[in-house]
Amino acid sequence: MPYRLDVISDQDSYPILIGAGGWTEMATEIGERLHPTQIVVAMDRTVASLYGSLVTDALGKLGCPIGELLCSAGESSKSSEVAVAWWQALAARAVDRQVVIVALGGGVVGDLCGFVAATYLRGLRFVQVPTTLLAQVDSSVGGKVGINLPSGKNLVGSFWQPSLVWIDPTVLRTLSDREFSAGMAEVIKYAVLRDDGLMELLEQQAPEVLARVPAVLGGLVHRCCAIKADVVRQDPRETNGIRATLNFGHTVGHAIESLTGYSSVLHGEGVAMGMVAETRLAERVGLVAHGLANRLEALLQKYRLPTELPKFSWEQWHGSMLRDKKNVAQTIAFALPSRIGCVSLKRDVPLGEVKTIVCG
Amino acid sequence: MPYRLDVISDQDSYPILIGAGGWTEMATEIGERLHPTQIVVAMDRTVASLYGSLVTDALGKLGCPIGELLCSAGESSKSSEVAVAWWQALAARAVDRQVVIVALGGGVVGDLCGFVAATYLRGLRFVQVPTTLLAQVDSSVGGKVGINLPSGKNLVGSFWQPSLVWIDPTVLRTLSDREFSAGMAEVIKYAVLRDDGLMELLEQQAPEVLARVPAVLGGLVHRCCAIKADVVRQDPRETNGIRATLNFGHTVGHAIESLTGYSSVLHGEGVAMGMVAETRLAERVGLVAHGLANRLEALLQKYRLPTELPKFSWEQWHGSMLRDKKNVAQTIAFALPSRIGCVSLKRDVPLGEVKTIVCG
Repeated sequence: MPYRLDVISDQDSYPILIGAGGWTEMATEIGERLHPTQIVVAMDRTVASLYGSLVTDALGKLGCPIGELLCSAGESSKSSEVAVAWWQALAARAVDRQVVIVALGGGVVGDLCGFVAATYLRGLRFVQVPTTLLAQVDSSVGGKVGINLPSGKNLVGSFWQPSLVWIDPTVLRTLSDREFSAGMAEVIKYAVLRDDGLMELLEQQAPEVLARVPAVLGGLVHRCCAIKADVVRQDPRETNGIRATLNFGHTVGHAIESLTGYSSVLHGEGVAMGMVAETRLAERVGLVAHGLANRLEALLQKYRLPTELPKFSWEQWHGSMLRDKKNVAQTIAFALPSRIGCVSLKRDVPLGEVKTIVCG
Repeated sequence: MPYRLDVISDQDSYPILIGAGGWTEMATEIGERLHPTQIVVAMDRTVASLYGSLVTDALGKLGCPIGELLCSAGESSKSSEVAVAWWQALAARAVDRQVVIVALGGGVVGDLCGFVAATYLRGLRFVQVPTTLLAQVDSSVGGKVGINLPSGKNLVGSFWQPSLVWIDPTVLRTLSDREFSAGMAEVIKYAVLRDDGLMELLEQQAPEVLARVPAVLGGLVHRCCAIKADVVRQDPRETNGIRATLNFGHTVGHAIESLTGYSSVLHGEGVAMGMVAETRLAERVGLVAHGLANRLEALLQKYRLPTELPKFSWEQWHGSMLRDKKNVAQTIAFALPSRIGCVSLKRDVPLGEVKTIVCG
């Protein structure tokens, strides 16, 4: 540490700074880079109680007015109701287009705040300051922002790039074990997607990773962000199938989250179960040699992640997976591995095979 | 007629087709150009009763499923509540990214439907089929889409380009006189903005225009769309002040709409009153020679438009104008004329002068 990556998107490029300091250095970077006339910090109440006053004090030294947007912790805040409330709060502050919105928190706040920033006054600048492992390696990079509907996750949203991503791995020490493990599911996903060496490192260094040694985490986060930034550069708006490979584990994972009401299962836990199920599906249709699903399951369990699917009827699974955004013309799409380092989008998986995997 | 214009935006270009035929030709164009797997027609109930079955029958011949999104007629539908209902309706139909949404109606449906299309699944293709004069010359071109909040108009939205704009001037015969006149306010705005010849034509040909002769209207619409397309090409995302000149009359106009609750005053009526007030302001601060405001007022009255401001307190005017999107750092911005054909953005108009104009 520190690491710097530049993400090149279809319109803008922006830096990801990893391990470059604490809140004071973050505030200096925002001030020098973006010259805000006003700053609004968006966070959930749990993050606000941990870091709220530290962050607003640091930003307050820049000399411009500081406001807050607050929500409850948890996926249920990623809703149209909270988006509307935040739009109205920005209107009540009469913010103009020189404002900078800081999304301080996990993926829920990053996605929700990014969507509000993308749509208020047709687009405001925002900074991603991810405080969970999941958000540091995934949702804070790449410009996908959005909210859930009762009938599906991320059905509403935009592509909207942050002006800066500020990642401090030392904040991960305040995560619960369960949240930390959920983030590791996405780290493991990157290994399957691109990097056999990362897979082996994760298998061998589990004790150091689980002990959250900052230098080890900084290196992991940098490796994952570099993969994500490369994928986003090749396919900024998910039009050529490359970005869709990041959805490995997510067709089944999103269905689990939706069918359990976005409350009892964390996103990373859904992805963990989804990756095992989708790898078994890839094995079943002969896309990948047998053995990968078991290896993956063992690795996920090492990081204390669930791998057994919950029980739902085929009608529930099918109806939920049909609403996946990757689908075209009512066929269900999956991002499936053919080996470690090679995942591609498949639209022709027989429904009967899918049913066997999810219903047993 | 027919006319064709190509709008070049920051990302895409798309054609505006004016007077190229009726619903059958429209359906053929959508089919050949966009190859939809499903079509959803968005409209208010008034437009649905006039054109709904004609349009869905014509589109039905393309052989793909046709759905509908409906709302009540009027500005109050351009709300977060209707946007959420339409998102949920698209989810209930399980639409995928190959769908095409057709916005059939005036500016309310075009802006609302465009915003829903911009944000559902992070962006769907949509076609603007404007049925009011206001929408044909203004809101259907340029990619600004959005909804209102209780505290201000268009506070939430996106830049999202249609794939096609289909304009049939013959549908303008079903407009009420009041709606038609409201559209003429924006036509007159283009004349002040860019085109002294158009100003004289509007002064001389009022009887033919008010009789809604299709060939006369087609020519007018083409002239206005060409001006708008040129402005949008020079400033697609309103970043250099050129596009903001289209907001002539709108700082005061939007305040009137907001203070009257978006119900009793039509957008074009607000703009008519706003243009006279803002031209008087330009005269008062010495930007333009005296006489233009009176000439403009006479022309607007010829087209049966209101020109006298309603009564509000200065606190109401000021609070409402402070929420205008053109503002920076709590100063109120105006697009003001210095002569016919030359309007520019001003941020330094003394508040006392503004107060004198709006409060008398």
